[in-house]
Amino acid sequence: MDAVRATYYIESSFPVKRCAEIIAMEESTGTWTEVHTTEGKDLDFVTAKVEDVDEIRGKAVIAYPVDLFEVRNIPQLLSVVAGNLFGLSDVANVRLLDLEFPNEFISQFRGPAFGIDGVRDYIGTKEDGRPHVGTIIKPKVGLNPEETAAVAYEAASGGIDLIKDDETLCDQRFCPMAERLPLVMDAIDRALSEVEERTLYAVNVTTGADEIAERADIAEENGANMLMIDVITAGFDALKVLRENCSLPIHVHRTMHGALTRNPAHGIAMDVFCRLTRLIGGDQLHVGTLTGKMEGEETNILHLDSILKEEWHGFKPVFPVSSGGLHPGCVEEEIGKRGMDLVLQAGGGVHGHPYGTKAGARAMRQAAEAMALGVGLEAHAAGAPELSRALETWGIGKIENYYR
Amino acid sequence: MDAVRATYYIESSFPVKRCAEIIAMEESTGTWTEVHTTEGKDLDFVTAKVEDVDEIRGKAVIAYPVDLFEVRNIPQLLSVVAGNLFGLSDVANVRLLDLEFPNEFISQFRGPAFGIDGVRDYIGTKEDGRPHVGTIIKPKVGLNPEETAAVAYEAASGGIDLIKDDETLCDQRFCPMAERLPLVMDAIDRALSEVEERTLYAVNVTTGADEIAERADIAEENGANMLMIDVITAGFDALKVLRENCSLPIHVHRTMHGALTRNPAHGIAMDVFCRLTRLIGGDQLHVGTLTGKMEGEETNILHLDSILKEEWHGFKPVFPVSSGGLHPGCVEEEIGKRGMDLVLQAGGGVHGHPYGTKAGARAMRQAAEAMALGVGLEAHAAGAPELSRALETWGIGKIENYYR
Repeated sequence: MDAVRATYYIESSFPVKRCAEIIAMEESTGTWTEVHTTEGKDLDFVTAKVEDVDEIRGKAVIAYPVDLFEVRNIPQLLSVVAGNLFGLSDVANVRLLDLEFPNEFISQFRGPAFGIDGVRDYIGTKEDGRPHVGTIIKPKVGLNPEETAAVAYEAASGGIDLIKDDETLCDQRFCPMAERLPLVMDAIDRALSEVEERTLYAVNVTTGADEIAERADIAEENGANMLMIDVITAGFDALKVLRENCSLPIHVHRTMHGALTRNPAHGIAMDVFCRLTRLIGGDQLHVGTLTGKMEGEETNILHLDSILKEEWHGFKPVFPVSSGGLHPGCVEEEIGKRGMDLVLQAGGGVHGHPYGTKAGARAMRQAAEAMALGVGLEAHAAGAPELSRALETWGIGKIENYYR
Repeated sequence: MDAVRATYYIESSFPVKRCAEIIAMEESTGTWTEVHTTEGKDLDFVTAKVEDVDEIRGKAVIAYPVDLFEVRNIPQLLSVVAGNLFGLSDVANVRLLDLEFPNEFISQFRGPAFGIDGVRDYIGTKEDGRPHVGTIIKPKVGLNPEETAAVAYEAASGGIDLIKDDETLCDQRFCPMAERLPLVMDAIDRALSEVEERTLYAVNVTTGADEIAERADIAEENGANMLMIDVITAGFDALKVLRENCSLPIHVHRTMHGALTRNPAHGIAMDVFCRLTRLIGGDQLHVGTLTGKMEGEETNILHLDSILKEEWHGFKPVFPVSSGGLHPGCVEEEIGKRGMDLVLQAGGGVHGHPYGTKAGARAMRQAAEAMALGVGLEAHAAGAPELSRALETWGIGKIENYYR
């Protein structure tokens, strides 16, 4: 059967199999009682079926026939595979773990336009294959456009590959996008002419799907070389609009995901958002850190990386992004375990460098270069004073008590 | 201070006050370390502040200055008040309980165009003030447009006030919206000419905010008298587009909310979605049942009703909708505890009536009329054979084991 297959974790006083059947009914053609209006109707073509049950691990796969879905309607997809089922009183907890799509569904979407290779082409790292390093403008909010550009200049001239807005900075009055963007692009160009390092600036165009095309147009007209979106708050339709209307790579932030993903027994796993981002066409996606300030389990994060990078319906791989409490001393563990195809972003870990933002950017680049050379951070730091100072400040690996 | 005030429930190894301070930093101007880029800057105008802390009950209020927010950007609002905070490793659980908005924020939105009175005007129940009764087309999906209209005719001629699409039925190939809608409206008109009962048909126009205006236009051109949206999956921007571009009342479904709302310690409370729906301008909103198949606590549901109906910034009240496993025997408890301003929707509880859909609709109307007359269901059933048969079938009150 051509079907969207959803894997769920289920906790219930019912056996998993029965509970999965209830969910399949609730999300396709059934309800709690027999109704007259189904008499003589063949509903098989839209009836969901339980295909696989693991009573011990509490898992079940439900196959939703592809005819159940409207073409290219992500909200309608979610209303089926992630809809009322979360509120059924007979189900104590239920978590959507993953989705698999049939070709008929896959062919409705484009996947990433750039992917890892496309972004590497722009930065010029396809040959050496080193990790990319990025920063977030800090403070998160409150700088005016000129102040923002000044921070960007420091970071770019330190050799950072990517500068991004904070996920909460969009088009507020204190820093309108159409004013900040050309100033930041000028700053980046100035740095390029001085140090010959190309830098992406992911300008945050997050707004509703109804307005985001216009905002992205303004960004393109003002010289943007990358767009950023908060995909959980803006919705996957907004990402779809960016992918289908713009010609720039797309940096995807996942703020708010923790409301859905954090409870291991309930909600929606990050795996699902990785699939949707790759399907629709983000080029970079935040999937967590092994060493930072946000929660996340190592095996899970490595699995998310693989969803973004493995062969999947011929779509280009998505560049995973590690961000949240990182500093140069985190780079060895992150890259050692996750490989070179990773964007390492440090906000405080760049702008908090004792010598300032430029030195902080250089320290991150030096850490990335150490990885590409296959030498340890400490060994490389001997000839890299900014990295050396960063390691003195923050040490190697995860900081134990971020806010204590 | 003109601020958006967010109330959180917090579980952490930190004291609640310290944890709230960390959240306020993370969501406004702070990060985990001192950064050079804040030197000499006055960031007070966008710095969030902890205003109220209850260490015993684990609650805190954070005031986010209104300048922190972009005008009319709901995704950006959510990225601040419901953003990274859910993933902070130093916070074990955190739940956004409620939001309060300053006038400067409120004035950016319109609120409901119709509200309870506007919908009552259309149906003609403003004088008697009886509860409204509705049904959902069942089976949820799989009927073609003609079959859908035939079910609608039965329900309308039985005196139902509202017919709605299932939350998973949008514009699939087996039942395209532009084909089903005119047939359903014809069916409703035919019933009106026969039994003189007006009926609303909430046609589900759910899709992304980029496409929903066009879909709503098609619906208006085809004679729709109400629009329906799945607001959690489509996003509040899609609701905003409907409110600002269409002249029809809007029925708001909350499918997928349980992924966010169900865990009492984490996520986002339904209260927040009630506020946003009223702010932006839904006319009806699903808030749960006291007696049905979906989970929900009585005190919580009554509080949600009050959020929709109480005086609030001069906005019209939103008609609360009770739906999910209801039947005529539920009406007494629902109305007794929640009052007459309630829409009671029964899908299986109408189409599963032993005498069929029309009788099921009549039974629901009879139950509603019993409430308006102030007589009990059983007393009223003596002169109401359809209600009598429904009570025989399903009894009075909540069905204990829906799926057993």
